[in-house]
Amino acid sequence: MDDAAGHGTVPRPIDWAGDHVRLLDQTRLPQDLVFLEITTIEALVEAIQRLAVRGAPALGVAGALGVALAVTTLPEPEWASAIARLRAARPTAVNLARGVDLAARELDRHPGESCRGSVLAAALALRDAEIAASTAMARRGAEELYRVLPDRDRLRLLTVCNTGALAAVERGTALAVVEQVFRDGRLERVIVCETRPLLQGARLTAWELTRWGAPFELIVDAAAAGLIGSGAVDAVLVGADRIAANGDTANKVGTFSLALAARYACPGRPVPFYVVAPESTLDPTTPDGAAIVVEERSGAEVTSVHGIPIAPAGTAALNPAFDVTPTALITGIVTDRRILTSS
Amino acid sequence: MDDAAGHGTVPRPIDWAGDHVRLLDQTRLPQDLVFLEITTIEALVEAIQRLAVRGAPALGVAGALGVALAVTTLPEPEWASAIARLRAARPTAVNLARGVDLAARELDRHPGESCRGSVLAAALALRDAEIAASTAMARRGAEELYRVLPDRDRLRLLTVCNTGALAAVERGTALAVVEQVFRDGRLERVIVCETRPLLQGARLTAWELTRWGAPFELIVDAAAAGLIGSGAVDAVLVGADRIAANGDTANKVGTFSLALAARYACPGRPVPFYVVAPESTLDPTTPDGAAIVVEERSGAEVTSVHGIPIAPAGTAALNPAFDVTPTALITGIVTDRRILTSS
Repeated sequence: MDDAAGHGTVPRPIDWAGDHVRLLDQTRLPQDLVFLEITTIEALVEAIQRLAVRGAPALGVAGALGVALAVTTLPEPEWASAIARLRAARPTAVNLARGVDLAARELDRHPGESCRGSVLAAALALRDAEIAASTAMARRGAEELYRVLPDRDRLRLLTVCNTGALAAVERGTALAVVEQVFRDGRLERVIVCETRPLLQGARLTAWELTRWGAPFELIVDAAAAGLIGSGAVDAVLVGADRIAANGDTANKVGTFSLALAARYACPGRPVPFYVVAPESTLDPTTPDGAAIVVEERSGAEVTSVHGIPIAPAGTAALNPAFDVTPTALITGIVTDRRILTSS
Repeated sequence: MDDAAGHGTVPRPIDWAGDHVRLLDQTRLPQDLVFLEITTIEALVEAIQRLAVRGAPALGVAGALGVALAVTTLPEPEWASAIARLRAARPTAVNLARGVDLAARELDRHPGESCRGSVLAAALALRDAEIAASTAMARRGAEELYRVLPDRDRLRLLTVCNTGALAAVERGTALAVVEQVFRDGRLERVIVCETRPLLQGARLTAWELTRWGAPFELIVDAAAAGLIGSGAVDAVLVGADRIAANGDTANKVGTFSLALAARYACPGRPVPFYVVAPESTLDPTTPDGAAIVVEERSGAEVTSVHGIPIAPAGTAALNPAFDVTPTALITGIVTDRRILTSS
């Protein structure tokens, strides 16, 4: 992948800006390209919780940079509680807690204010490692698709949520594979699930694809099974928020439904279903999907769209932000180092 | 079911008003309760196409009453083309064409203007037959659930789109069964899929349930598989727009996904999946699902919600309004006369 051709089309959603964290406010896309200058832990936690920054790799970097922000801006007695608040801002993506822990380890190695330089260095190293991981996943995932779909010159892919540069630092995870296929001249089209309730597919993935100039079509999430069943999709690619030791994968709500459709919608002809995620999303301490905590978000995300009510006043809603796809439905997990399969 | 307790809570969405058709404009619900006084075939076709009236049984009645409107308001030479336009207003629901044909048969029996009384009588008889069918389906469907789920005192049901009184004339199809279970004191709760793109679940079903005072929770369509997989649902109930001779069923987009989840989300423990539809939705002339024409609607329904854009300008969308659930995934088809099973 060539940087001149590829990158710079989508700005980094998170970075360190000298003495604070700079975030692209993803709740404002695609209408407005607004950066947030984050100078306090409170502001960072709030930005994470309202999904101004989201995506497992990006949350990992946010966690690590957040520790750097804490030790830079707060007196030492407040570090521990700030770090704990940050670590707990969202429960499902393992990368957030892991990014916090990675940077916080430097506090033990370099006691007191002397840690500042090494905390920031560790956070920036994580940022750069995620960029390198995205590049590796993009190439490995594309090669895997070419290998398992040898008869398709140009691929028809389907994805959900946003797993592009906006979910990481550059390139992304599943959408990085789509981008690689596109840059290789082998993308026929990508079908994008809009991803209710917060429409990350319609708002963010469509925006990234528009910036690349790639061919895509948006669908409502419920249309995926019929399209897969009709033979219109060669492979399904999704990201991950936490991958348990046995391969069970928590990802954006709706992923399980796509995995069921990929396996069963065309009887006798399963469609390859890949999870694309960096090694940093693998969580060997969680044995299986039953042990993953799924974040339940406000029902107001369901009962309104962009602030407009879509249901009668007083309507109660269930709003699990994620679901868990069992390892048996996953063709392979593409990481920056390998491809994991359950069989 | 007691009329005093049950009906009148939701007004009839369609009826004959002396010399014209009266429709409840379902695009305005739940915000506004607005009736349309339809005096021309053009207005009726437009109302059908923009889904001011929708739902297979209601469309059948609209077709039949539309023929009555044509022969009442137009000179005889214009009847045939008006009837043809009405019959073709939407392709997937068999009831529309069938309702038109049923009323139009009276034109052969009673040539010229003498047909008027008998056309209207046939249309009103269809209306009354659909009301009777709904009552029969409600009772038969509820008894079937009590039979197959003997260990559950109170049922946790899941449904999609709107299949209540608003989709028929009174009571409805799948939602009529839910209402029967509720009136029998055996509904624990019903989970309602919002049903993007046009949100018939969030707007219409939630409105009907609110009027009954029944316990329900709204979800995004993509959340259904995870909830079914978690064991939170005892049975899935859906309507139908056309049922082919082999039992393959066209219904609102997303139904196929629910059927896959009901069958496969809990390995070894399939959740009963019922289609509830009057005999008038069975189409023996369509051999199987592959022969069903699925209406493709405007992409603008996907790229905006209540007129607010949700995707970047210029985003292309696919918008199949229906999908086809293969008969093998359907536990039973509950009609007003019987329960059909594929095995």
